[in-house]
Amino acid sequence: MKADGKYLSSIWLDEKNNKQVNIIDQRLLPFELKVTGLQDPEEAITAISDMLVRGAPLIGVTAAYGIYLAALKYNNTDNTLNRVMEYTARLRESRPTAVNLAMAVDMMTEKLSSITSAKELIQTSLEMANGFRKSEIEACKMIGEHGVKIIEELYAANPGRPVQLMTHCNAGWLATVDHGTATAPIYLAHDRGIPVHVWVDETRPRNQGSRLTAWELGQHGVPHTVVADNAGGHLMQRGDVDLLITGSDRTALNGDTANKIGTYLKALAARDNNIPFYVALPVSSIDPQLKEGVNSIPVEIRSEDELRYIEGVDNEGKVRSVDTLPKGSNALNYGFDITPSGLIKGLITERGICKANREEISKLLDNE
Amino acid sequence: MKADGKYLSSIWLDEKNNKQVNIIDQRLLPFELKVTGLQDPEEAITAISDMLVRGAPLIGVTAAYGIYLAALKYNNTDNTLNRVMEYTARLRESRPTAVNLAMAVDMMTEKLSSITSAKELIQTSLEMANGFRKSEIEACKMIGEHGVKIIEELYAANPGRPVQLMTHCNAGWLATVDHGTATAPIYLAHDRGIPVHVWVDETRPRNQGSRLTAWELGQHGVPHTVVADNAGGHLMQRGDVDLLITGSDRTALNGDTANKIGTYLKALAARDNNIPFYVALPVSSIDPQLKEGVNSIPVEIRSEDELRYIEGVDNEGKVRSVDTLPKGSNALNYGFDITPSGLIKGLITERGICKANREEISKLLDNE
Repeated sequence: MKADGKYLSSIWLDEKNNKQVNIIDQRLLPFELKVTGLQDPEEAITAISDMLVRGAPLIGVTAAYGIYLAALKYNNTDNTLNRVMEYTARLRESRPTAVNLAMAVDMMTEKLSSITSAKELIQTSLEMANGFRKSEIEACKMIGEHGVKIIEELYAANPGRPVQLMTHCNAGWLATVDHGTATAPIYLAHDRGIPVHVWVDETRPRNQGSRLTAWELGQHGVPHTVVADNAGGHLMQRGDVDLLITGSDRTALNGDTANKIGTYLKALAARDNNIPFYVALPVSSIDPQLKEGVNSIPVEIRSEDELRYIEGVDNEGKVRSVDTLPKGSNALNYGFDITPSGLIKGLITERGICKANREEISKLLDNE
Repeated sequence: MKADGKYLSSIWLDEKNNKQVNIIDQRLLPFELKVTGLQDPEEAITAISDMLVRGAPLIGVTAAYGIYLAALKYNNTDNTLNRVMEYTARLRESRPTAVNLAMAVDMMTEKLSSITSAKELIQTSLEMANGFRKSEIEACKMIGEHGVKIIEELYAANPGRPVQLMTHCNAGWLATVDHGTATAPIYLAHDRGIPVHVWVDETRPRNQGSRLTAWELGQHGVPHTVVADNAGGHLMQRGDVDLLITGSDRTALNGDTANKIGTYLKALAARDNNIPFYVALPVSSIDPQLKEGVNSIPVEIRSEDELRYIEGVDNEGKVRSVDTLPKGSNALNYGFDITPSGLIKGLITERGICKANREEISKLLDNE
């Protein structure tokens, strides 16, 4: 999408040097937009483990390009394939919880393991990485095409008034490659000239809403307002929200959805105020192993430092981290919560929109 | 309650100079405990509007002392009463949502308006302010006595395991004069040796939970853990919360309750997980003019800077404010939300516990 006055995606092969993969160092946003070129495969591992890139789809694509960089690096060595395979094993562990990472690495390992020519290894790994990138973009584009219909209907029901959307965390193009998941219908509606306004949850403790989603929307020119996570219920009560839309970290076969901590609270408020809540996700985020989510999806506990320390720009323009808690007080930091399917009006996927129940999800999965 | 190793309250007439009212500048907590002396009535208005003091009961008491300071200041002028009355009109507007402010000002205005002697004006306003202070302390003490029974019952039902409480914002002694409202039963349970643990909501955007409640509890030695506002739903879903208890900024006759933004979301999660949600409040926070709250209680919109800037201690130990939002993104900052009475299990007041409905509240109000 648009950023810094041009069109940007979250990862791409450098236009002039096809031995370099460009990413945005997302740790610096929104304070600085810095494009970093990866040339060595070890840099791809660091980009994932140190969270220069984040978001399951983007991590998967970054890993794929990492394998391409490894094939390039070990091109002139005695045993190219073995060295590339040694690399993929380490790459696979760079963020052990991200499913897309393991999936991308496994798919490439399987395909590449039968190739003996170093030249072919380079070519095939690049083709696969480009293919992963393209299919992520396509999936998000289709999520947008399906989801925009909901926004169009809301606008038709109340023409002239901007459609009021709310989202939590960042399920934008920075988390994928382009378009995003939850944001795809929003960008498309905006680009088609439907007036929209987005309430952006700050999303404590990591502030992905105020740091990433607000930045994304602002760069693309989408009207938006940041609110405290606490404000969503009141906004819905006032009638100031027409549609709640978030991404998903993992959705079970019955529609229960794990997403960033706080999603469940917004879903409760949406139900209490008869506001539709949709989850936008690629089909790959539906876990075919999980019959239900509330009791089965493990919830990660992250460092309390994410709550304690907050980063921002001081009055001299310098990015600083400040400690916000009293001495002697501790914090507990669950990374996500699980919204029961009964609170979800529907799932917006690249294959269409379905209800968040076992029957419709099964049909969607069968419909490849 | 205990703080800094001694016993402190949130407002008191200076022991040596009875023309000075001492408060704690709560904006500096938890990083610095600073007592500030008010000597001019304008300082009382600033203390309220700039939130050196906050919390409905404390605002009411501060306003009362402000009128005393006005009576002192205009003692030697031509028209003491008129000037005091001109002051009370401005004082009354210094914060819109809390009912205690208007009530304290109105009660004093009524009483003082028939007094002609400046000396008597000073004496009566001081007596009234001292009286308000004393009765707030008494009310909170009784809220503790009534509310502790709920905690005792929970403990008896599950002995040996600490009772897991959750609170939002600061309804502690810093918000009142002593004991607090929501915290009064917690302090009393702790002091009686019942093991308790408190989940403290951070309470964005002003962080009254992590800055004030966590500090208060820590100073008094009550076990507690700070969590992001987003985490409450998940904790309740996991069965890690036995009782949700908050304060009230204003409660209508039908039990609808305005409290810090985000309270409504926690109340929804409590209902969804069958966890009792009690509101602890002095009877003075029940507005006898309001038949219902959701559509009638005015909700203050505060500066977006409260969301944008976050204060904390940098790595050199200096308190700094950092700007957390992207350039060009705006924020909207509602101060309160209104929880419909149907989500509230009961009101804990100094006169006892009652259901949050018109019938029981009327009975409570009649029972002076």
